Amino acid sequence: MSADMDMPRGQMRQNSVVQPLLTDLYQITMAFAYWKSGKVLDRAVFDLYFRKNPFQGEFTIFAGLGECLKFLENFYYSDSDIEYLKSTLPASVEPEFYEYLRNLTAQDVTLYAIEEGSVVFPRVPLIRVQGPLIMVQLLETTLLTLVNYASLMATNAARYRMVAGKNVSLLEFGLRRAQGPDGGLSASKYSYIGGFDGTSNVLAGKLFGIPVKGTHAHAYITSFTGVEDLQNKTLVHKETGITCDLLALAYTYRDSIASELGALVSEASDGELAALISFAIALPEGFMALVDTYDVKRSGLLNFCAVALALSDLGYQAIGIRIDSGDLAYLSMTAREVFEKIAVKYNLPWFAKLTIVASNDINEETILSLNEQGHKIDCFGIGTHLVTCQKQPALGCVYKMVEINDQPRIKLSQDVGKVTMPGKKNAYRLYGADGHALIDLLQRSIEDPPQVGNKVLCRHPFQESKRAYVIPTRVESLYKVYWENGKICTPLPTLEETKNRVQVSLRTLRNDHKRNLNPTPYKVAVSDDLYNFIHDLWLQNAPIGELS
Amino acid sequence: MSADMDMPRGQMRQNSVVQPLLTDLYQITMAFAYWKSGKVLDRAVFDLYFRKNPFQGEFTIFAGLGECLKFLENFYYSDSDIEYLKSTLPASVEPEFYEYLRNLTAQDVTLYAIEEGSVVFPRVPLIRVQGPLIMVQLLETTLLTLVNYASLMATNAARYRMVAGKNVSLLEFGLRRAQGPDGGLSASKYSYIGGFDGTSNVLAGKLFGIPVKGTHAHAYITSFTGVEDLQNKTLVHKETGITCDLLALAYTYRDSIASELGALVSEASDGELAALISFAIALPEGFMALVDTYDVKRSGLLNFCAVALALSDLGYQAIGIRIDSGDLAYLSMTAREVFEKIAVKYNLPWFAKLTIVASNDINEETILSLNEQGHKIDCFGIGTHLVTCQKQPALGCVYKMVEINDQPRIKLSQDVGKVTMPGKKNAYRLYGADGHALIDLLQRSIEDPPQVGNKVLCRHPFQESKRAYVIPTRVESLYKVYWENGKICTPLPTLEETKNRVQVSLRTLRNDHKRNLNPTPYKVAVSDDLYNFIHDLWLQNAPIGELS
Repeated sequence: MSADMDMPRGQMRQNSVVQPLLTDLYQITMAFAYWKSGKVLDRAVFDLYFRKNPFQGEFTIFAGLGECLKFLENFYYSDSDIEYLKSTLPASVEPEFYEYLRNLTAQDVTLYAIEEGSVVFPRVPLIRVQGPLIMVQLLETTLLTLVNYASLMATNAARYRMVAGKNVSLLEFGLRRAQGPDGGLSASKYSYIGGFDGTSNVLAGKLFGIPVKGTHAHAYITSFTGVEDLQNKTLVHKETGITCDLLALAYTYRDSIASELGALVSEASDGELAALISFAIALPEGFMALVDTYDVKRSGLLNFCAVALALSDLGYQAIGIRIDSGDLAYLSMTAREVFEKIAVKYNLPWFAKLTIVASNDINEETILSLNEQGHKIDCFGIGTHLVTCQKQPALGCVYKMVEINDQPRIKLSQDVGKVTMPGKKNAYRLYGADGHALIDLLQRSIEDPPQVGNKVLCRHPFQESKRAYVIPTRVESLYKVYWENGKICTPLPTLEETKNRVQVSLRTLRNDHKRNLNPTPYKVAVSDDLYNFIHDLWLQNAPIGELS
Repeated sequence: MSADMDMPRGQMRQNSVVQPLLTDLYQITMAFAYWKSGKVLDRAVFDLYFRKNPFQGEFTIFAGLGECLKFLENFYYSDSDIEYLKSTLPASVEPEFYEYLRNLTAQDVTLYAIEEGSVVFPRVPLIRVQGPLIMVQLLETTLLTLVNYASLMATNAARYRMVAGKNVSLLEFGLRRAQGPDGGLSASKYSYIGGFDGTSNVLAGKLFGIPVKGTHAHAYITSFTGVEDLQNKTLVHKETGITCDLLALAYTYRDSIASELGALVSEASDGELAALISFAIALPEGFMALVDTYDVKRSGLLNFCAVALALSDLGYQAIGIRIDSGDLAYLSMTAREVFEKIAVKYNLPWFAKLTIVASNDINEETILSLNEQGHKIDCFGIGTHLVTCQKQPALGCVYKMVEINDQPRIKLSQDVGKVTMPGKKNAYRLYGADGHALIDLLQRSIEDPPQVGNKVLCRHPFQESKRAYVIPTRVESLYKVYWENGKICTPLPTLEETKNRVQVSLRTLRNDHKRNLNPTPYKVAVSDDLYNFIHDLWLQNAPIGELS
């Protein structure tokens, strides 16, 4: 799904900044120290997971897996990478180490993951990476970079979709405020996956096949001073082909409808009228007008309706309006009322249903407040708050070693939330009779999966007394192998499939987990075996001489 | 300074997402409507500026200009761009329009700007773009994308530098939490410009020549269980070349210094010791150790000091420690105390000055609080808060038309802060006798520049009664032509020069404008001529029938 999909491997890598050097230096320093310590054949298992859902919510959408797999596919150090590393690492680093790096690929790595687009929860690994210690350590930073923002963005978009409801269109308009050019592209891609309907970002449209939308800006309106700026005032009728004077028609309509709108023709801007006429002539099938350059009620709506009615006489149906300032609830209700009046007056039922787009500094809370006020908006264009994830601009995914040379590893911490869960684990989602997900269960990978209809003991990973039996109606095994033997071994879904997966997955979650205010935490449990395994290892590793 | 600097034009463009399609669709829709309306020869002037300083501060660092100019240099629509646009715009769009786009370049554009790295203020245009209306409109989104995040990031970094003081090193560690891979690269580049000393991001090092830093992660420590994991325990003496048992030496030192540290050897982790020994053997000249994997006081410091002393016996000076959790002020003071004791005990003065790096979730406020507590940290590694600009994740630069076909344009708004300042303007910075900047003054471009030693009337752009006379000791003209006749016509500074410019420019600003708490706003004024010009035009454009 990317522009460079037909390119040979080397070229593909060079066209992206996603390459092995997009990492923290300490990964390479560690690689050298491992290599130097004779740990080239050591094998390790790492879990990639987050500890807390973003946005004060109780769910997260997992995204970025496809890009992680492409990164593995293209993982190699080029000659210029090696030259750069030689100039950066101490001169004492042996040439053999660079030779080792030069030949390094992801051939011996195995990557398990949850399906991209799934609803996921804290502590359940999204990705488990196994393979040579040095290689899996070298993947850390890049995998985190690719998953963190993608998942944050997809989650944010899914939250906007939930508060907006399914009958409202959502468009991502954030490119100009995004964190860098590629931040803008990622925002377009992952907001689409999360539930948006399109973007204004043309390159995202070209690269990912996302629908692109947009009409004009205030500058277009202000570039016309009056009707004398119109070099062409005519348009041919869609059916008859007869050339008509669109401006004259619009003038007539403006006079006839001003009173319905409670507006005065003398107060309306003629520059705005000229701009709308020219735009309608250019795009008669796509007439969507920005109506707040001067005054929505006194000028914008009047001019828009006059031009839309004139267009209608020539066989074209206008699309609607965009409002980019002011009281969006009130203005949208006013506009809808005007459209309904005109629909009746001229017997044009479609006029009542013209699209109203709103696009001024909108966030989740704005939409909730607009909902309460009974807004009449059909489409939100959302920029800054969406793409920068203003409410929480980073998801804190971490990548932790859980096993080395078949020995489990636990990282203890005085903060119990930071203690890692050792060893290879499998994850299952247990469903109830009503189809909703009940709980996610982590088990040791050597345990048998939980069985439908059987009692499953689910324990809190760290609180001894918290435990419950669950009898699942359905058991979903969350991990698939995505990368093995140097190849992507599970076909990657299309963008549309991932987008669809998000909505399907969200539907399995009870509403109280998803609501905006005080959502109920979804439970993540461990099996009895894993519980004992964690705590035995904890005991073995507990420091002597203090209560931990 | 980019990886593709030697490439031919076409290839260079393809290697970057910064290309003409990285824009909002409405720019292209407007271009078509302008083209269709016969406005191909129309000429316009746009100002790019912001309305409010970020982070509750009273200054901003302007950055991103170099990338804007490279974008102009590489501006053209490729065949595949045109194909994509044909598939996206309505079928009624004439082939001649695509022909027009295909031949479009920035040849006829002129771009004025303030020097990159300068301190800048609200309402003073950072960039003024003149040229064919269609072309300058098409540049909007991409220029905003390139300036917004770059300036936000550089400003954020400059603020961290100010609170940290000049004797502390600042390293950017944010790649894994950045908003996309390129967000990470931009963060590294612009935090360096803003005042950071280096980054962990290796690709940023390779592409931009920024110093890269880093040692190891907790995983390196936990990958060793005990000294039995050490395949090699020896290191050769730096001077004599004699092979010594580093582990045995470290054991001896650990026994001798435990009491000085108030630690018990039995409580220290042998896995940690093994990891540090192996790291020291790999990088004896760059021994910097993470000391908080188990317990800083009981284990990490003891093991580090033991290994550092052993290294010292072999002729190597350790670099220092990194602390990534816990009470950073307290732990840094403890560590410094230990280092000082050991310096005395073994008569190794450099030991007292070992570097202490701190790196856990640090932001401006954390540093201010650590300062108050008298921390002993030499270097901060800063990630999430820096790169996502958590405190304010977007700078709201806008791009407004101020003139078309030599006619000034004003955009009115009920919010006076959103009224645009019409016409081509020049900007001057007036300095006082003490070398500090007094005020920025906007004038009409036809006015003579203010003169040193002469009284200059400075007016608030919108409040009639606010005015003052200023007698400047120095007058700096803020704009230079950077792009004209299809070429960059002012040599672009190197990254180092821009970084230097930031500090020089910040020094001209009084401290009360720069302080963290309740800074004094810096004044931006207009000349009397410009004041009258704005208000005459405002009157001419004021709507009839309401008090605006």
